[in-house]
Amino acid sequence: MRGDGRTPGQLRPVTVERGWSKHAEGSVLVSFGDTRVLCTASVTEGVPRWRKGSGEGWVTAEYSMLPRATNTRGDRESVRGRIGGRTHEISRLIGRSLRAVIDYKALGENTVVLDCDVLQADGGTRTAAITGAYVALADAVAWAQRNKLVRPKAQPLTGTVSAVSVGIVGGVPMLDLAYEEDVRAETDMNVVCTGDGRFVEVQGTAEGQPFDRAELDALLDLAVTGCTELALAQRTALEQELPA
Amino acid sequence: MRGDGRTPGQLRPVTVERGWSKHAEGSVLVSFGDTRVLCTASVTEGVPRWRKGSGEGWVTAEYSMLPRATNTRGDRESVRGRIGGRTHEISRLIGRSLRAVIDYKALGENTVVLDCDVLQADGGTRTAAITGAYVALADAVAWAQRNKLVRPKAQPLTGTVSAVSVGIVGGVPMLDLAYEEDVRAETDMNVVCTGDGRFVEVQGTAEGQPFDRAELDALLDLAVTGCTELALAQRTALEQELPA
Amino acid sequence: MRGDGRTPGQLRPVTVERGWSKHAEGSVLVSFGDTRVLCTASVTEGVPRWRKGSGEGWVTAEYSMLPRATNTRGDRESVRGRIGGRTHEISRLIGRSLRAVIDYKALGENTVVLDCDVLQADGGTRTAAITGAYVALADAVAWAQRNKLVRPKAQPLTGTVSAVSVGIVGGVPMLDLAYEEDVRAETDMNVVCTGDGRFVEVQGTAEGQPFDRAELDALLDLAVTGCTELALAQRTALEQELPA
Amino acid sequence: MRGDGRTPGQLRPVTVERGWSKHAEGSVLVSFGDTRVLCTASVTEGVPRWRKGSGEGWVTAEYSMLPRATNTRGDRESVRGRIGGRTHEISRLIGRSLRAVIDYKALGENTVVLDCDVLQADGGTRTAAITGAYVALADAVAWAQRNKLVRPKAQPLTGTVSAVSVGIVGGVPMLDLAYEEDVRAETDMNVVCTGDGRFVEVQGTAEGQPFDRAELDALLDLAVTGCTELALAQRTALEQELPA
Amino acid sequence: MRGDGRTPGQLRPVTVERGWSKHAEGSVLVSFGDTRVLCTASVTEGVPRWRKGSGEGWVTAEYSMLPRATNTRGDRESVRGRIGGRTHEISRLIGRSLRAVIDYKALGENTVVLDCDVLQADGGTRTAAITGAYVALADAVAWAQRNKLVRPKAQPLTGTVSAVSVGIVGGVPMLDLAYEEDVRAETDMNVVCTGDGRFVEVQGTAEGQPFDRAELDALLDLAVTGCTELALAQRTALEQELPA
Amino acid sequence: MRGDGRTPGQLRPVTVERGWSKHAEGSVLVSFGDTRVLCTASVTEGVPRWRKGSGEGWVTAEYSMLPRATNTRGDRESVRGRIGGRTHEISRLIGRSLRAVIDYKALGENTVVLDCDVLQADGGTRTAAITGAYVALADAVAWAQRNKLVRPKAQPLTGTVSAVSVGIVGGVPMLDLAYEEDVRAETDMNVVCTGDGRFVEVQGTAEGQPFDRAELDALLDLAVTGCTELALAQRTALEQELPA
Repeated sequence: MRGDGRTPGQLRPVTVERGWSKHAEGSVLVSFGDTRVLCTASVTEGVPRWRKGSGEGWVTAEYSMLPRATNTRGDRESVRGRIGGRTHEISRLIGRSLRAVIDYKALGENTVVLDCDVLQADGGTRTAAITGAYVALADAVAWAQRNKLVRPKAQPLTGTVSAVSVGIVGGVPMLDLAYEEDVRAETDMNVVCTGDGRFVEVQGTAEGQPFDRAELDALLDLAVTGCTELALAQRTALEQELPA
Repeated sequence: MRGDGRTPGQLRPVTVERGWSKHAEGSVLVSFGDTRVLCTASVTEGVPRWRKGSGEGWVTAEYSMLPRATNTRGDRESVRGRIGGRTHEISRLIGRSLRAVIDYKALGENTVVLDCDVLQADGGTRTAAITGAYVALADAVAWAQRNKLVRPKAQPLTGTVSAVSVGIVGGVPMLDLAYEEDVRAETDMNVVCTGDGRFVEVQGTAEGQPFDRAELDALLDLAVTGCTELALAQRTALEQELPA
Repeated sequence: MRGDGRTPGQLRPVTVERGWSKHAEGSVLVSFGDTRVLCTASVTEGVPRWRKGSGEGWVTAEYSMLPRATNTRGDRESVRGRIGGRTHEISRLIGRSLRAVIDYKALGENTVVLDCDVLQADGGTRTAAITGAYVALADAVAWAQRNKLVRPKAQPLTGTVSAVSVGIVGGVPMLDLAYEEDVRAETDMNVVCTGDGRFVEVQGTAEGQPFDRAELDALLDLAVTGCTELALAQRTALEQELPA
Repeated sequence: MRGDGRTPGQLRPVTVERGWSKHAEGSVLVSFGDTRVLCTASVTEGVPRWRKGSGEGWVTAEYSMLPRATNTRGDRESVRGRIGGRTHEISRLIGRSLRAVIDYKALGENTVVLDCDVLQADGGTRTAAITGAYVALADAVAWAQRNKLVRPKAQPLTGTVSAVSVGIVGGVPMLDLAYEEDVRAETDMNVVCTGDGRFVEVQGTAEGQPFDRAELDALLDLAVTGCTELALAQRTALEQELPA
Repeated sequence: MRGDGRTPGQLRPVTVERGWSKHAEGSVLVSFGDTRVLCTASVTEGVPRWRKGSGEGWVTAEYSMLPRATNTRGDRESVRGRIGGRTHEISRLIGRSLRAVIDYKALGENTVVLDCDVLQADGGTRTAAITGAYVALADAVAWAQRNKLVRPKAQPLTGTVSAVSVGIVGGVPMLDLAYEEDVRAETDMNVVCTGDGRFVEVQGTAEGQPFDRAELDALLDLAVTGCTELALAQRTALEQELPA
Repeated sequence: MRGDGRTPGQLRPVTVERGWSKHAEGSVLVSFGDTRVLCTASVTEGVPRWRKGSGEGWVTAEYSMLPRATNTRGDRESVRGRIGGRTHEISRLIGRSLRAVIDYKALGENTVVLDCDVLQADGGTRTAAITGAYVALADAVAWAQRNKLVRPKAQPLTGTVSAVSVGIVGGVPMLDLAYEEDVRAETDMNVVCTGDGRFVEVQGTAEGQPFDRAELDALLDLAVTGCTELALAQRTALEQELPA
């Protein structure tokens, strides 16, 4: 039994609130337990310079934490004048994960920027961000279709993508670590899967002892289960009417 | 009649949601119509170096906008590597406004940082930020009292403070401008008042024609009315039980 | 009686020395007592990218202090690698103030940059800067007219602008605060007026106690008087022959 | 058969040249084929502020590429004034990988900084860097032991660590990708192992299609084989006399 | 005959105006023809961290140009967020030149910062800066002596220093190049001499053709003559009463 | 006799290893004793914006030190976020020195960037960099000729250039100072000469006492001898077959 009463293979309560912002083409407030991330998708015509004339679109992401999203206040990166390594790393991970389900040709020369701002952090912010950003992206792509930015019948989305953290805590493989578990984990892994259970990204790190193949296998099994459940939550949210 | 059906002297609907974050010592999601600002107050023991040993506390503020808080996405200041002039200006305004109701001696050598992050912008973000930050500050001060960071019976708060924008739009003085009105305003003013109707800050700017004394007087009258109403909304919010 | 023998409603000695630099299209060394600011106006053909093709010009300003303009040496912002909030705020104020008397259409697609560098500071640097920059701007506009950068008979200047600080010191409203007064002021206000006595910008701040409406009114009265006197000094300077 | 004549499971020629620099406490020029990385280990007494008084040491790493290490010249990060996301990510990976084999208590309050500068790049720069940095670290630790910076008999190194890239190219799982293969890879994985075949870090990314569990397993098998071979090369290098 | 009527070996008119600023411990407005540089010397007790406890003082310099000191406006380095190579180079040259006549022991643990801000540029800004900064430094050292910051009878200044530019223009070696000459010079040299005619710094650069030994000798001869004359101007200025 | 057994007028052993990198158009690992600098020359078609349409090429240089090139580790300039004054100064010196032997017209609108990265430092890094960069530049120009980037028969190189340090150590003028000598030098000079013994750059600095004309002359004599010898080493290296 875990601190919050979950079994090792259980996700925290997940909510996916679409249409959170009136300005963005797609916007989702996603929560994995107490972790809350605001994901907005901004569509603009045109692509970065290095891609112009290719006929292909681009999708990128920026991740950030509000200074008091965490237990102690962190300095703003804008104030420090530079982006930290962790922020860079997670922004790149989110971007790669979403590009895995994009058909650039079908998107045409349009750019979608996913902004994932952590309003409250309690572990798993990057996986919540990917899971929420996918839904924001889906809404943004639908917006682009309705507004004729993409060719008729073009399907820029080739699949769905969600992410979850897994880890070994006190010798037990566990799904969707809360902050307090993450801190104690011997091994920590973030897994990004498509809706059909294949892998987009696997990032496992030994925090204490190195891990062996059997542990790795157990963690991958748990992650695939978790991602499947998250894919269902995404589909359910997307099937609802978008609030006006 | 205004675009959203208000009379010239009417505020937009105001909500003040306390206890929004589980980590911060005070946290408020404030909205003035579609403008939504998350204000968190972080208390730390100790003060900046230049104030050490004075026996006095410090209060400061940082304002920022999420990239897609506005109609078109703006670049992150962390990515640009520098804070813009507007951000600097508003952060300083918020800090000064809240320090106007702080007794540094009573606060003791503690620091409160107010983070005001605009989640959605529709005009009046700085005035909503000040109004919400005051409530977060009040909760943070109460927390410091409960946790014995300040001397018994010390009252660090000497009053209340709220802020509202006013402006002349199409020749008519109006209260609490929405973005669409702000853009068309000939004169634009932000006024910060204490709960007893005195001024903490008055910042008026001619956007088109210079304004005369009669116009200035009409705007100040409107602003005082608006601030009084906001002070009431603050008090009402603070009288409620803080959610656990 | 004030420290330097002035009455509360008296300006410090004002000098406006035109043609200070041989390179700039307009250049003025302005002094308000011991405050000395070098204001240069640089005219270039063309406008910033976001304004191209509009047929309209642009006017902007940059304010800075030499490191030892003040009593203790300040670090250079170039060395720190970032511009401080105060500098940003004042640069923006100067720019807005001068744009209030510019007819962009008449200016045509030309840009005027006002550089206001404080050589020696003794209070009121921003108001001296605005007052001097107006004269440099007038010379620069005349230069543009002589050199046919603007259409024949076009009058880019629609009025004159000057600025002065006022404040309540020891309970007494006073005009044009020197540094030593500014430090003790309970309320501090900077007012920018056109030559016909209307307001371009009003920025009042309670440094200690909040101020009431009567105090605000007294300060505004003083400021209008001061600006009228400064407008006269500007006109007198501009009526003289520009040194070769 | 691969472009350079290797079989899918074959490493490129590996060289590990110790004692490359006369200044550093450990220094290694490592090459994986045409990829050449200079790894230096710098030992200093003392630890970063946040670790002072803990009795524990610290190990960190910085990765960088010379501007013309690659086929086209890249801008220097010092000239751009900021470190890119990729650099941050790899520096962090190297640091984590080496810390996995460090006993902080045994190291005592000493810091080892590993600088990994890519002199020539041809794929696998981060895995070559980790493999070479381990050897430089081992030399630096031995230096610290000889110079009594660590307690007598203390063994700061708890194991060995090496790294290799694997990927699926044209449907075939391959070991130690050269640049030209890396560009064409559908899936790309970097694996860091200890000398006893356990995992320190697993980072797999789908570049094109998502990958399935069978592909993941095949890549992990290859990687473990490669790391074992690299561990042998490390041991062989470390058994030789260090050049004077 | 040169453009401004000088002979090849003639300096431009030199003025050295002491006591220009009321705040600085030493301040000089120096002009070499139309080149005008404001040099201030700021004395503070204490030395940079790396020199603490040595019993020795420190002297350093910062050079900068106002944006419109030159014929076309240059961007501010504070706005660009970084200091350019030329500024760095000249700041370092000024610092080294003045340190050549400082006895650190006699100065004691005090720091003098020389700020050299070019108000108007017409060639030779760095040499005017060194020449003026020496006089500001002499005044600052006298101030430190009067105010007992240095031991009684300590003589921190061990000599005098001045600087001049020389160059070959149209095949003719010339002294103290104005901007228009500097641009056409085939060889350009800056020479810093002590009052007794020895060299502190010699920096010669072939702008077009390399120069031979005979040309180098002719330039050095001219420079020594110029520096001797400047040393006289410095002494004359320093013998006058400092304005109150 | 010097610390390493050299006579005062003797260079350290010099090696010039061409073709060090497989990517760059020219690449040289140059050593002056224990000082080792990797110099790469990168050719690109086109020139910086300010030179477009001129028909002329451009040559520029960037100098940097690896963090542990020196006895104690230095912070990376990329990490500090700014380039130091010394780096700027040396980069500019290298660029000017090489441009002295370039015919821009013959080079056509092509750019050559010389990157000089110090792998190990023991004094004279800038002079080794210039000497090595010349050879890399010669190879790059030959590459441009072979690849028809320049007009047939165009000779972009107008001469050869090399550099050496000289200094007065313990009263004795010496050639090619090692670090340990450089630290003790009373006067330090860097001299850049063309192959025919003329001067491109002379930079002499009094580190302790000012130096007189006789000392200057002795140093210049030594430097010319040293550069002649280095020119021979360059020619010898360039006459060999470039490794494939």
